Amino acid sequence: MYELGVVYRNIQRADRAAADGLAALGSATVHEAMGRVGLMKPYMRPIYPGAQVSGTAVTVLLHPGDNWMMHVVAEQIQPGDIVVAAISADNCDGFFGDLLATSFQARGARALVIDAGVRDIKTLKEMNFPVWSKGVSSKGTIKSTLGSVNIPVVCAGMIVNPGDVIVADDDGVVCVPKAMAVKTLEAARAREALEGEKRDKLATGILGLDMYKMREPLEKAGLRYID
Amino acid sequence: MYELGVVYRNIQRADRAAADGLAALGSATVHEAMGRVGLMKPYMRPIYPGAQVSGTAVTVLLHPGDNWMMHVVAEQIQPGDIVVAAISADNCDGFFGDLLATSFQARGARALVIDAGVRDIKTLKEMNFPVWSKGVSSKGTIKSTLGSVNIPVVCAGMIVNPGDVIVADDDGVVCVPKAMAVKTLEAARAREALEGEKRDKLATGILGLDMYKMREPLEKAGLRYID
Amino acid sequence: MYELGVVYRNIQRADRAAADGLAALGSATVHEAMGRVGLMKPYMRPIYPGAQVSGTAVTVLLHPGDNWMMHVVAEQIQPGDIVVAAISADNCDGFFGDLLATSFQARGARALVIDAGVRDIKTLKEMNFPVWSKGVSSKGTIKSTLGSVNIPVVCAGMIVNPGDVIVADDDGVVCVPKAMAVKTLEAARAREALEGEKRDKLATGILGLDMYKMREPLEKAGLRYID
Amino acid sequence: MYELGVVYRNIQRADRAAADGLAALGSATVHEAMGRVGLMKPYMRPIYPGAQVSGTAVTVLLHPGDNWMMHVVAEQIQPGDIVVAAISADNCDGFFGDLLATSFQARGARALVIDAGVRDIKTLKEMNFPVWSKGVSSKGTIKSTLGSVNIPVVCAGMIVNPGDVIVADDDGVVCVPKAMAVKTLEAARAREALEGEKRDKLATGILGLDMYKMREPLEKAGLRYID
Amino acid sequence: MYELGVVYRNIQRADRAAADGLAALGSATVHEAMGRVGLMKPYMRPIYPGAQVSGTAVTVLLHPGDNWMMHVVAEQIQPGDIVVAAISADNCDGFFGDLLATSFQARGARALVIDAGVRDIKTLKEMNFPVWSKGVSSKGTIKSTLGSVNIPVVCAGMIVNPGDVIVADDDGVVCVPKAMAVKTLEAARAREALEGEKRDKLATGILGLDMYKMREPLEKAGLRYID
Amino acid sequence: MYELGVVYRNIQRADRAAADGLAALGSATVHEAMGRVGLMKPYMRPIYPGAQVSGTAVTVLLHPGDNWMMHVVAEQIQPGDIVVAAISADNCDGFFGDLLATSFQARGARALVIDAGVRDIKTLKEMNFPVWSKGVSSKGTIKSTLGSVNIPVVCAGMIVNPGDVIVADDDGVVCVPKAMAVKTLEAARAREALEGEKRDKLATGILGLDMYKMREPLEKAGLRYID
Repeated sequence: MYELGVVYRNIQRADRAAADGLAALGSATVHEAMGRVGLMKPYMRPIYPGAQVSGTAVTVLLHPGDNWMMHVVAEQIQPGDIVVAAISADNCDGFFGDLLATSFQARGARALVIDAGVRDIKTLKEMNFPVWSKGVSSKGTIKSTLGSVNIPVVCAGMIVNPGDVIVADDDGVVCVPKAMAVKTLEAARAREALEGEKRDKLATGILGLDMYKMREPLEKAGLRYID
Repeated sequence: MYELGVVYRNIQRADRAAADGLAALGSATVHEAMGRVGLMKPYMRPIYPGAQVSGTAVTVLLHPGDNWMMHVVAEQIQPGDIVVAAISADNCDGFFGDLLATSFQARGARALVIDAGVRDIKTLKEMNFPVWSKGVSSKGTIKSTLGSVNIPVVCAGMIVNPGDVIVADDDGVVCVPKAMAVKTLEAARAREALEGEKRDKLATGILGLDMYKMREPLEKAGLRYID
Repeated sequence: MYELGVVYRNIQRADRAAADGLAALGSATVHEAMGRVGLMKPYMRPIYPGAQVSGTAVTVLLHPGDNWMMHVVAEQIQPGDIVVAAISADNCDGFFGDLLATSFQARGARALVIDAGVRDIKTLKEMNFPVWSKGVSSKGTIKSTLGSVNIPVVCAGMIVNPGDVIVADDDGVVCVPKAMAVKTLEAARAREALEGEKRDKLATGILGLDMYKMREPLEKAGLRYID
Repeated sequence: MYELGVVYRNIQRADRAAADGLAALGSATVHEAMGRVGLMKPYMRPIYPGAQVSGTAVTVLLHPGDNWMMHVVAEQIQPGDIVVAAISADNCDGFFGDLLATSFQARGARALVIDAGVRDIKTLKEMNFPVWSKGVSSKGTIKSTLGSVNIPVVCAGMIVNPGDVIVADDDGVVCVPKAMAVKTLEAARAREALEGEKRDKLATGILGLDMYKMREPLEKAGLRYID
Repeated sequence: MYELGVVYRNIQRADRAAADGLAALGSATVHEAMGRVGLMKPYMRPIYPGAQVSGTAVTVLLHPGDNWMMHVVAEQIQPGDIVVAAISADNCDGFFGDLLATSFQARGARALVIDAGVRDIKTLKEMNFPVWSKGVSSKGTIKSTLGSVNIPVVCAGMIVNPGDVIVADDDGVVCVPKAMAVKTLEAARAREALEGEKRDKLATGILGLDMYKMREPLEKAGLRYID
Repeated sequence: MYELGVVYRNIQRADRAAADGLAALGSATVHEAMGRVGLMKPYMRPIYPGAQVSGTAVTVLLHPGDNWMMHVVAEQIQPGDIVVAAISADNCDGFFGDLLATSFQARGARALVIDAGVRDIKTLKEMNFPVWSKGVSSKGTIKSTLGSVNIPVVCAGMIVNPGDVIVADDDGVVCVPKAMAVKTLEAARAREALEGEKRDKLATGILGLDMYKMREPLEKAGLRYID
């Protein structure tokens, strides 16, 4: 349930170094490092491939077909933030385009994550302003109803609290609670270090069956080979 | 982000009278009384028409294809509760059937709200145990991975905290935060009282245009009548 | 493209007898009688089974999440009409509930066909006011933006002109242009008469293969039987 | 890959007693008895609730928008059969209505399972002829292209060979290979017998945690209780 | 409702300069310039990113799985046209590939907009022939049933009359009625001119809140800031 | 119905030259050459555009959220194979990433076709390892339940037997039964040769209406031209 018509100005952001450092790990590794939780639903897709970012969340709650609060959240952006926009009901209109992107970028935002549609995507790509969204639509919105800024929101199935870390790339979007950011960065780096070794072994033709010692548990589970 | 592998045993439940009384108002009126928030996504449908319930939420987080925690949550049910089951990723397998329903009902649960599939729906109807779900599927589940019980969850797009009030009927499912339950009940009753009067007027052929005094704002907005 | 902010008060309705008579034939037969055209998309479903109606269309164009024009269209309803509501972009909020239904019914409307969501469906069933919709949702709407009444609309993929005949039942919704209503009624009745004879034959075990003389064209098309 | 333009007349049907006896167990129990395989996708829904059938499959492959082969398959129906209709590409037109149902029923068919749409559903219910389908649509079909009868087909994601047993109820549709029918019936009955005992225990308030001895494995998996 | 089996040869096309000039503005600006109407549903996506076109519509109505009329419409193409293909029921087969594209391009068509699937998309990209479609599918079609050419059609939820202007880019597809083409071009250019100024201001960090003077109406609506 | 817990080691692969040669023809031409059958559902999309491959299928059956068998199938890969992964129920988690791709590629696999989700798609593109999938998701999977390797599976609606030829490109994925591979290659080449001639003619502006001699059958079907 959402508190409506409020803007929280002073939010506590996650540790800056952790918020910045998680981008390099990517959403899949970060999600694993947290114990396979934190992912937004996979319908959230980048508007162009290749972008990989992390940053601190400023959140905004919008209503269907109404992007008024996007202007309100713009003022709360600090450099290194990612705007996370939730909608109070399913809607795929185009809440965001090149003008708002210009404003967000000027305030220091690194990206937008929105559980709705966006437009002007060719220009957004040229501006190098990545967006993860539910869809693309030219459909414009009105400015009529109050939502809120920097309240906890549910975006694409995931709870995002203001100040949490968002990690987004071609695989999807993950939210790391601010209290876990530092620990998650460490776990993700440790995981990635291990993956390098594994990759080298697998590249030589060594099988995961042997590297992970799976043959015995598979046999115990009853796997039969038939020639 | 979810905390995994924990069961909170002592949750604070919403005011009992409010939790019981909201059923009579229905999900649409309650949702309006809260300021048009609190609704789960409309893909949540009852497995049979006509049931209308309210109760206090006990929550459970499950993983795709794994209903182990359903047995864990059963122990935490108290009479007057509604079990709210969230899944860590999209999945529509049949997590719940007549055996679990027998157990839940024996413990005093009034209903299940689950962001996944259920089965044995003919028997559930005969048992008079209502379920709101994302779908129906015979697909069975395994018992292998830990989720959690009585943590805050996101179910069908809505945050549900343990102890919140759930109101569900043929129109959908709404979650009322426990701190707002009493106030919401009052607001919903006031709203319903007004609706009775309005209904009587409209039934005589009086138009909403006149009853709500809309003609002037419509004209101001530029509405033109053409004969 | 839609003309916005206008209400056409004097529309020409289809022949009354035809508009009333088509209900008995049902949507499938009427659709066939028109040459297999006129159907709305099959996601349009009745909120309860068993209703079968026909009537003259009064149309309304709404915007996502805004049901203001529903009150405007109410005034234009005449006995024997069916309200056809189109939305300017995909939206499944609950635009219509028991209060509006009371008003529509008092004005003589037989049903609502809406390319969006509705609510209070248990009450609507009790009132015997059928609705064909895209979905069910408790989500309320605002009253803020002008659409239009009695302009040509696209509802669930089909063009509906004010005054056309709408035929709706458990199989779906079909629109018969007013100029074709009389002719379509005749064609549909002729078709139904033939179906009665065919049904009797098929019930005795006679095959469609023989009754429709399909064996020769099937053989010519190359069908082979293998024992 | 499908063989086109052929009708296999002599198919081997599953053991009659097993094909008849599986209905009573229902799709969920039968699916479990086979080791959690054999289910069609859960978008296959009954056109009316409450029917529960089993029978031997006669299969038909159709093309989008073309129901010619439905007349061909009618001739191959024997009492106790269920027609399973697959389509060569996604399509939800109304391939089947009351006339074909009259013919199928006259030939002894118990039901239709079709990975497409059907129509005349009110009449089908009155006729007591159950159908499991992907949807409902008034949209008529043509009779122009050859498919096949009694070849192996993929229906809603599941391979069905002619003569296999189909079990369908409100929970979904399961296919039992003819060679496994007798064994599956035994396993399903054994399973059901056990379920009766379990149900009685659970109804007294005994928990699945204790009945299934889950407390130890849950603890071993790391489950923590917090008061 | 559609007239079947007809080809209108002499259609009135929108003003050429307007039809050509609208491409530069893009679908979002044109849609706004018309008062937020005219958009096809957002499931219409380009088969490759980056194309931005406008042109006069020649329309074709097809039936599911049947592309016969695509050859008929080819003859009606004039340089500067965009073919708009509607289907009489939902279908996503591949109605169009490199051969038809070669023919359309040779006749002067600038693009295809089709409420169905297409194939050979790699070659279409190499040919620089853009297509906006509902999907991609290798599934071939037959040539058996008559539709129509240059009748009014509903394509992806929008009415398109022959001769209207189609504007399509990465954001979607919009239809401008021919009678509004000149006026819409002017309005869109005026809008774009204003956008340039706004963009420059926003790029300096000036907020939309101030530039659009939103602070007062937001306060009046009840927005509260909490520190 | 699937046999669980088995790995068939000695499968018969389709003719090598045919399996290799079909890539050049592409999925649309191969699908036509087989008589318009063999296509997987069009929701199967490449994770990056431009790849075009063919190879012999090794199949694997997985369960929702469990990729254990991916390591088992890796051992059965031979150079020139394409792994075809089916899931026992709808699921879109990320079953496959860069580590498994490294292993598959080291064993000689050309591609993966999976009726579920994948992750690490940016790295997969850099590795030049193409995947056709139902979606993209960072969601990790567990290793707990046995499926099977090299049994017949249904992948995206199509039966695939181990050793069959898979042809995949930007238009989709087609399966050619091993017994038909050589004949299909010939038919596809013949078809392609004809297409070259047709393309040249159409490029000069000659109409398909004339080239295919459609004017007479269209007239016979009743097509009317109106000036």
